Amino acid sequence: MSGIKLKEISTKAPKEFDKAGTKEQTQKILAELDNLQNLLFAEGKNALLVIVQGMDASGKDGVVRNVFTTMNPQGVMVKGFKAPTAEELSHDFLWRVHLHAPARGMIQIFNRSQYEDILITRVHKWCDDDTAKKRMNAINDWEKLIAQHNNTRILKFYLHVSPEEQKARLDERIKDPTKMWKYNANDYQESALWDEYMKMYEDCFEHCNEIPWIIVPSDQNWYKEFIIASEVKKALVDFNMQYPGLKK
Amino acid sequence: MSGIKLKEISTKAPKEFDKAGTKEQTQKILAELDNLQNLLFAEGKNALLVIVQGMDASGKDGVVRNVFTTMNPQGVMVKGFKAPTAEELSHDFLWRVHLHAPARGMIQIFNRSQYEDILITRVHKWCDDDTAKKRMNAINDWEKLIAQHNNTRILKFYLHVSPEEQKARLDERIKDPTKMWKYNANDYQESALWDEYMKMYEDCFEHCNEIPWIIVPSDQNWYKEFIIASEVKKALVDFNMQYPGLKK
Repeated sequence: MSGIKLKEISTKAPKEFDKAGTKEQTQKILAELDNLQNLLFAEGKNALLVIVQGMDASGKDGVVRNVFTTMNPQGVMVKGFKAPTAEELSHDFLWRVHLHAPARGMIQIFNRSQYEDILITRVHKWCDDDTAKKRMNAINDWEKLIAQHNNTRILKFYLHVSPEEQKARLDERIKDPTKMWKYNANDYQESALWDEYMKMYEDCFEHCNEIPWIIVPSDQNWYKEFIIASEVKKALVDFNMQYPGLKK
Repeated sequence: MSGIKLKEISTKAPKEFDKAGTKEQTQKILAELDNLQNLLFAEGKNALLVIVQGMDASGKDGVVRNVFTTMNPQGVMVKGFKAPTAEELSHDFLWRVHLHAPARGMIQIFNRSQYEDILITRVHKWCDDDTAKKRMNAINDWEKLIAQHNNTRILKFYLHVSPEEQKARLDERIKDPTKMWKYNANDYQESALWDEYMKMYEDCFEHCNEIPWIIVPSDQNWYKEFIIASEVKKALVDFNMQYPGLKK
């Protein structure tokens, strides 16, 4: 992943994938995810943390809504990280994040995450390079902590959309009454900082890749959902789980 | 501190300290601490974490009661770490600890701490050496996190008592009606594991000393309190604090 250039990676599904067939595949995986999540909960040995990052309108909410929808909500928690509160700001930047680390048996989804502290903050120069470097080291240490000391598998997804696709989606938010609630005047200003964001993401992929990032071509939601569902399934299957017998 | 042998360190006050004079000194320091803590709170830039570790009856509760007593309780929080709950055990061992890291402006006291996870657990073989090593690395990373990313000064005190003094205090708990509530039949069993505890403490001083341990001779409470009050004062003075002016 080192030296990755986002511009060189397609934001679209490879040609061999067609929409209808892929959607059908995804549905099959989602049915399996329901069972796998139940097993994860029943066994209570491992935890899964799913980090979803991406530009505005890259489809983060859609991932939560469409990929984790078949699972039992008792075993799946979602935390959206917004601008930190005054109380959160009076602690180190990982304090509010650690609080939401998954217990064993659970799937935790982060809609945005600790990575915002080295993305939006750097783009707006609220955080200098030296501080960013230290934060990235601290993030690596923290991810190692929950991986090593609580059997937590971490999946880090970057939803990769083109600026053109983002523009189309932002424009839709102005026109579609069911999407207006998502509109935020700031989004266009942030969008103007696209190249700067890409640079910071690339730096993040470079320095925070001990637990690897997965770049998900996301211009088409059906392909994005297929990839994420597949990766989640793979991670859960890798746990090699079994239903525990009767308690002694 | 590397290679420290607790047996070679006195548990008593050096000869030049007399009880009456030292107590008088401590009272002066406590009066200053009241002011310094108010300044810490008002300025809101730095945080202080005071970790108090020691064998049973080494006087941990007394430190909390007698050294931090003059300060405004709004700015001083105490967390006693007992055997972890089922919920705490379903997370990494630092999860419950991080939750109680001090906000800037605050003094947080840990009565026992993350270090129990490499002390009592090792003595009883609930934790093997390899896991202990990983935990010590994780503790070092975490202490660096709150130090670097939240201006937190960490003071780590080991209350050093002799086994004879401990025995005398445990016996007192059986006889003194005001102390019986502290009696726990397990204490004598733990006491029998003294040498094993000392070995694990020494290993901890060896591997978790990036932020250094302070060994406090604690057979005499008046000397212990003097040392700890002095160190807390020094740490607060080092912050070089100023009352902020009117907010703009």
